[in-house]
Amino acid sequence: MKSTLFPLKFQVEAQDGEARAGVITTRRGVIETPVFMPVGTAGTVKGIRFEELESADLDARIILGNTYHLWLRPGIDVIKAAGGLHRFIGWDRALLTDSGGFQVWSLGDLRKITEEGTEFRSHVDGSRKFLSPEVSMEVQAALGADIVMVFDECAPGQATHEETERSMELTTRWAQRSRSAFDRLQSEGVETGHVESSPGLSGRQALFGIVQGASHLDLRRRSLEQTVEIGFDGYAIGGLSVGEEKSVMFDVIDDIAPRMPRDCPRYLMGVGTPTDLIEAVARGVDMFDCVLPTRNGRTGQAFTSRGKLNIKNAQWAKDPRPLDESCRCSVCRRHSRSYLRHLFLTGEMLASILLTHHNLAFFLDTMRGVRQSIRSGDFLKFRREFTERLGANGE
Amino acid sequence: MKSTLFPLKFQVEAQDGEARAGVITTRRGVIETPVFMPVGTAGTVKGIRFEELESADLDARIILGNTYHLWLRPGIDVIKAAGGLHRFIGWDRALLTDSGGFQVWSLGDLRKITEEGTEFRSHVDGSRKFLSPEVSMEVQAALGADIVMVFDECAPGQATHEETERSMELTTRWAQRSRSAFDRLQSEGVETGHVESSPGLSGRQALFGIVQGASHLDLRRRSLEQTVEIGFDGYAIGGLSVGEEKSVMFDVIDDIAPRMPRDCPRYLMGVGTPTDLIEAVARGVDMFDCVLPTRNGRTGQAFTSRGKLNIKNAQWAKDPRPLDESCRCSVCRRHSRSYLRHLFLTGEMLASILLTHHNLAFFLDTMRGVRQSIRSGDFLKFRREFTERLGANGE
Repeated sequence: MKSTLFPLKFQVEAQDGEARAGVITTRRGVIETPVFMPVGTAGTVKGIRFEELESADLDARIILGNTYHLWLRPGIDVIKAAGGLHRFIGWDRALLTDSGGFQVWSLGDLRKITEEGTEFRSHVDGSRKFLSPEVSMEVQAALGADIVMVFDECAPGQATHEETERSMELTTRWAQRSRSAFDRLQSEGVETGHVESSPGLSGRQALFGIVQGASHLDLRRRSLEQTVEIGFDGYAIGGLSVGEEKSVMFDVIDDIAPRMPRDCPRYLMGVGTPTDLIEAVARGVDMFDCVLPTRNGRTGQAFTSRGKLNIKNAQWAKDPRPLDESCRCSVCRRHSRSYLRHLFLTGEMLASILLTHHNLAFFLDTMRGVRQSIRSGDFLKFRREFTERLGANGE
Repeated sequence: MKSTLFPLKFQVEAQDGEARAGVITTRRGVIETPVFMPVGTAGTVKGIRFEELESADLDARIILGNTYHLWLRPGIDVIKAAGGLHRFIGWDRALLTDSGGFQVWSLGDLRKITEEGTEFRSHVDGSRKFLSPEVSMEVQAALGADIVMVFDECAPGQATHEETERSMELTTRWAQRSRSAFDRLQSEGVETGHVESSPGLSGRQALFGIVQGASHLDLRRRSLEQTVEIGFDGYAIGGLSVGEEKSVMFDVIDDIAPRMPRDCPRYLMGVGTPTDLIEAVARGVDMFDCVLPTRNGRTGQAFTSRGKLNIKNAQWAKDPRPLDESCRCSVCRRHSRSYLRHLFLTGEMLASILLTHHNLAFFLDTMRGVRQSIRSGDFLKFRREFTERLGANGE
């Protein structure tokens, strides 16, 4: 008899149009969806302490780690020595690791893609490296995240139908190899981040598939079919927000998200602004990750309920107001635009720390609002009011 | 009848040899002495949030702001617009501002000192600036700190007796002018950071004098006499830790600290390592400020009960231990040397944030231990055990 224990459980609990509110139960706690995952590239969500991620202000239930970066530095031997990524970084909530496929693809001329995998030079020390479905699964097993992503290939936003088809078919074959390597590693159970099983949960890692196909809807649909046929614990839409028009991105999400398995989490990778998140939720997406709140925080840009705010602007020199008068985060409760501008212009680290905190609070709080509105059947109202508040600023 | 209200109250509550444990009651709460004041140069203690400074880990009761830096950037008009430095930065506990004298003196060839004051070029925009006792008092009144320092001149550590005497006498004349300007501003009461009076406290700012005289004990004693004659709410020893031998520094403290008024706080400016602090406490000093915990934190150096630790060292690559196994701060409770080393080598901001937090926790916790040991009559034992634990590492 087959085990009824799964790596994770997903339950849609409310729906408003295509928008879904649900719960992912993982080995490390419950994640309410739709969810935004802060990006912890090199084992740290840049500029913020884990205590703040856990605080009521943010309450991030899951963060993302980048396999490519962690593999190159500090290296898997260091993370293995600590007993996996959770223990290495000191984070006991859920973690998702990407496969390294996107980072390697982003290297452009520095990498060479073959059927077997991708050869590239390390950006850290210039050494020659090779990443494949099998290597990625081994590395991600050693990292021991709660959710692992298949190793995929990404076609450029402007790729022709023929180029995209070739790339998409390669992604499917790599997905199959990822699945096989992952299953073998999980059944061996050595250094694969297994934890104690718990009611309904196997204690094993979960594996998500990735749908590719650039802007070509027929290829996207075929990629989805092939990926679902292999079978995964969740499904992601990859290869968006890589330079294509925003309308193209939403055409793809419009077409693909509602066709994705209803009983599995749907994850839109690397997207996006608060508006993008809400628009994707309206099309049935459950999970997001993006560097925008952290990266823009470090360059002086705040996301607010009235749109983006550049803290460098002279108009804030003596402005006693918080970044966002509607925000209740610890930064907005305590600090003025005037002070934050001064910190930024003086090159003080605290500017990045505080803007990062506020931006993450804003993203995570927006998703809380999204979830509540879906559960109360007011999502369309929430979406309209959110967009209207942004006003001319747009995002 | 003269008012019996003072800007601050100081009470020595226990003494062990020359070491004193007491309480400074300020307009913004109680400060137990001996006390270490984190340095908040440009309106931020670099790399740490105010919430952390207030947390039980650190519980900093007073921090320092640099008049020179704040005057140049963001400028006094911005801070006035906010209603003073406390409100500008969002800190409701006690603040001390220095006079700018030391920073201007440190500019070397970029400044010219006359009887009237110091002319210099701003390091921010190259503009010509002039700082004098009167200007410093006006700026510090606008900043509104709870403790204000007189505008002084600092002689180089190697200065001859003649040079030092000239410099020291100038400091005395500037102290007199500082006192006059300060008193005039306080009695006018406009933009001088007045707060409501409270039981025993006038609600006005306090003014501290500074003893100069480099390594020449006769000049130090004369400077002390002249400064006490003018009369201040507290007395500081300035011009130490500016390049002289450590033995010279302690010779001066040895001679001068016990001669300083017993019923006023004694403040050793800009010093030093944890060992320096304990040695100066043993000679009767009550207050300290120093950039070491924050600056060294940013360059990867941790202060621990076993001496200094360079987090960059390869030996920590897989070390699961915290920075200091005797430390109970939030960094040591959560993160390993292995992880902190990785953060530092990767250039992650979190490395500076976490090392700064630990270093401040270590300094402030050491001072808590110092206070307890004086009150229980065990200071000599505390001092001996602290030094022994440091071992060969020395500091």
